[in-house]
Amino acid sequence: MSEELKKAALDYHANPIPGKLSVEITKPAQTARDLSLAYSPGVAEPVREIARDPELAYKYTGKGNLVAVISDGTAILGLGNLGPLASKPVMEGKSLLFKRFANINSVDIEVNAESPQAFIDTVARIADTWGGINLEDIKAPECFEIERTLIELCDIPVFHDDQHGTAIVTAAGMLNALEIQGKTIETAKIVCLGAGAAAVACMKLLVSCGAKIENIYMLDRKGVIHSGRDDLNQYKAMFANDTDKRTLDDAIDGADVFVGLSGPNLLSAEQLLKMASKPVVFACSNPDPEISPELANATRDDLIMATGRSDYPNQVNNVLGFPFIFRGALDVRARRINEEMKLAAAHAIKDLAKLPVTQEVKDAYNGIELEFGPQYIIPKPTDTRLLNAVASAVAKAAVDSGVARLPYPEHYPL
Amino acid sequence: MSEELKKAALDYHANPIPGKLSVEITKPAQTARDLSLAYSPGVAEPVREIARDPELAYKYTGKGNLVAVISDGTAILGLGNLGPLASKPVMEGKSLLFKRFANINSVDIEVNAESPQAFIDTVARIADTWGGINLEDIKAPECFEIERTLIELCDIPVFHDDQHGTAIVTAAGMLNALEIQGKTIETAKIVCLGAGAAAVACMKLLVSCGAKIENIYMLDRKGVIHSGRDDLNQYKAMFANDTDKRTLDDAIDGADVFVGLSGPNLLSAEQLLKMASKPVVFACSNPDPEISPELANATRDDLIMATGRSDYPNQVNNVLGFPFIFRGALDVRARRINEEMKLAAAHAIKDLAKLPVTQEVKDAYNGIELEFGPQYIIPKPTDTRLLNAVASAVAKAAVDSGVARLPYPEHYPL
Repeated sequence: MSEELKKAALDYHANPIPGKLSVEITKPAQTARDLSLAYSPGVAEPVREIARDPELAYKYTGKGNLVAVISDGTAILGLGNLGPLASKPVMEGKSLLFKRFANINSVDIEVNAESPQAFIDTVARIADTWGGINLEDIKAPECFEIERTLIELCDIPVFHDDQHGTAIVTAAGMLNALEIQGKTIETAKIVCLGAGAAAVACMKLLVSCGAKIENIYMLDRKGVIHSGRDDLNQYKAMFANDTDKRTLDDAIDGADVFVGLSGPNLLSAEQLLKMASKPVVFACSNPDPEISPELANATRDDLIMATGRSDYPNQVNNVLGFPFIFRGALDVRARRINEEMKLAAAHAIKDLAKLPVTQEVKDAYNGIELEFGPQYIIPKPTDTRLLNAVASAVAKAAVDSGVARLPYPEHYPL
Repeated sequence: MSEELKKAALDYHANPIPGKLSVEITKPAQTARDLSLAYSPGVAEPVREIARDPELAYKYTGKGNLVAVISDGTAILGLGNLGPLASKPVMEGKSLLFKRFANINSVDIEVNAESPQAFIDTVARIADTWGGINLEDIKAPECFEIERTLIELCDIPVFHDDQHGTAIVTAAGMLNALEIQGKTIETAKIVCLGAGAAAVACMKLLVSCGAKIENIYMLDRKGVIHSGRDDLNQYKAMFANDTDKRTLDDAIDGADVFVGLSGPNLLSAEQLLKMASKPVVFACSNPDPEISPELANATRDDLIMATGRSDYPNQVNNVLGFPFIFRGALDVRARRINEEMKLAAAHAIKDLAKLPVTQEVKDAYNGIELEFGPQYIIPKPTDTRLLNAVASAVAKAAVDSGVARLPYPEHYPL
């Protein structure tokens, strides 16, 4: 990050007022009459109604369009465990994105939890406040158990975006990249460098998309995850292959796909050269990818590359997913965000990249390649068609898979 | 409450969109550049700064102007224990009042806690999210221990408004009423009907104002609280007098002051007649007072009366206090709201009632008595001078009593 950007970011957050969100009143609140409706004595009526039928909270309060962004600050961006309070600007930022992209009201909650169980207890007790919960920046492997338990305990969608948002956008781009390269997910040999929350979720979703688990080589800091290792947690163990490959050098040999969710400059030009013809390289370490696009493109000219950065083609950006996934889930009052909804989101994002972009997007990305092909496999965040495409796909999947409490919305398409 | 008002309140909460609050973006968030400041990668900078110095959360996030309204729904208005979700319209209403009267951003949290300790654990773990916590509609006696413990655990103001807000506004009106009646708080004989959260807090604050505990007779459902009873919790026990009075009939005989925080129509005309000359009657049960103003005024013509209702003179309305108390506390970053600050708030409200009202207030209360006297001992909620009067008094008291982390604000008076 440039010094200019650092300074601008601090100034942005501090001035003219601290932070970037406010809470505003949406109903008349000036006169004594207004206040007698908004508060005492009138407010007793919606209270009685909700006590009679809890579903009426969606009718008389903001719950149905309100998502909490919740973190314990144990894995903030790529910065590590800096504690809950330090995560607040990120959580407020996520709330800002919910509003900006999907008109969802969102508040942040930072949890100072002494254990994963304390975090779970805390969030479960306050979950009724909102229509959905977006978990954020919680370290692995604790995040898996936290999310799984909260999904069980809560009757609203609980979604750990670092896992599934990343997985959904990665899957969308990956399917397009493989198509362009003339390959299929079912036969692709995949190397996943990194075995954290995002990596595990990405590989699970690719398997849901058709990838064969025996074609996936996942690597953690100790090398290839294989069935002979006795140091694997249950999440890594899902990807333990019976193989004699031990290092990235071993695994990358002949691979069709490299997915990096690890750290900077961990894939060398030599290793890139060992991949199969027409490879797909998703180097998502941020801000510095596993291999720089400059080096990768100088090394071979038959690859399709994506990164986590906005200043290169094919950015894997979670904002393509989570605002619209929650929009669709909230609009049909889904009890959870299931695998069908995640797949529907991935396919909707994938399909949108194949449509000609709008003039609006062209104007915003002047001079950038925006036609479906190696330089454009993923839509741009400013593509306003994402809202309808993803939300409607997610809502339909929720209805079809039986987790929606409302029918497909009459006010769709958005 | 009239059927018309009930219907209007439901319509107000449901249409055109559910609820009455939204979360809005206060900074530019349109372009890719904007988003690179609000979120990744720029947001890493305020994260690093806050990790280095937690106080900088007040500079780079919304924490410093953000108050949570938190309830477990165990004592919602006068409706009883209807559970956390049913309390949501009230908590959202309180957040609306924070914004409306003091421009404080406020969010509601409903806690589904199996015990007071679970409530405490939950709130303590998420308290860093905000600049202050307003506890609401939590039943006695649990609310006392909950508030006391959270004040100890949290480094931000924790304030149970049902206790202290009511006490502060009551004290303000009481001091004015006694002055008009030619009496003093130090010698007044006080009967308090009710021994719940508000009653205990009111009597404690009146003692801080000069009332003698031996002049106070508090009554619960079993009658006068006296030193011969063995069924008192520690909070009631503070007010156990060595007396042979046992009933309201006994206690009211010769009393200067009646404070009702109990239920409808519990003070009879006969009992009112037994009070001393020039009595003060605060009949705050809502919506139906302990004695109706019509009956009270028909019974004797030397009394000063206040109620909790907006359609009679002298409304004891918490909104005269809490928005401005938090405004002052937040503006000097007070670690807590202590007794000095509560007293300062009460005196500021009291003093404001003695000033001639503004034309704005006259226009809003056409035809109502607005000159300091028996019919006007408490300011009106629409008196915009409350903001400065109360906030500055509270801020000064915080600074003087050593709980402020900032000096008296340069931007005051507001």
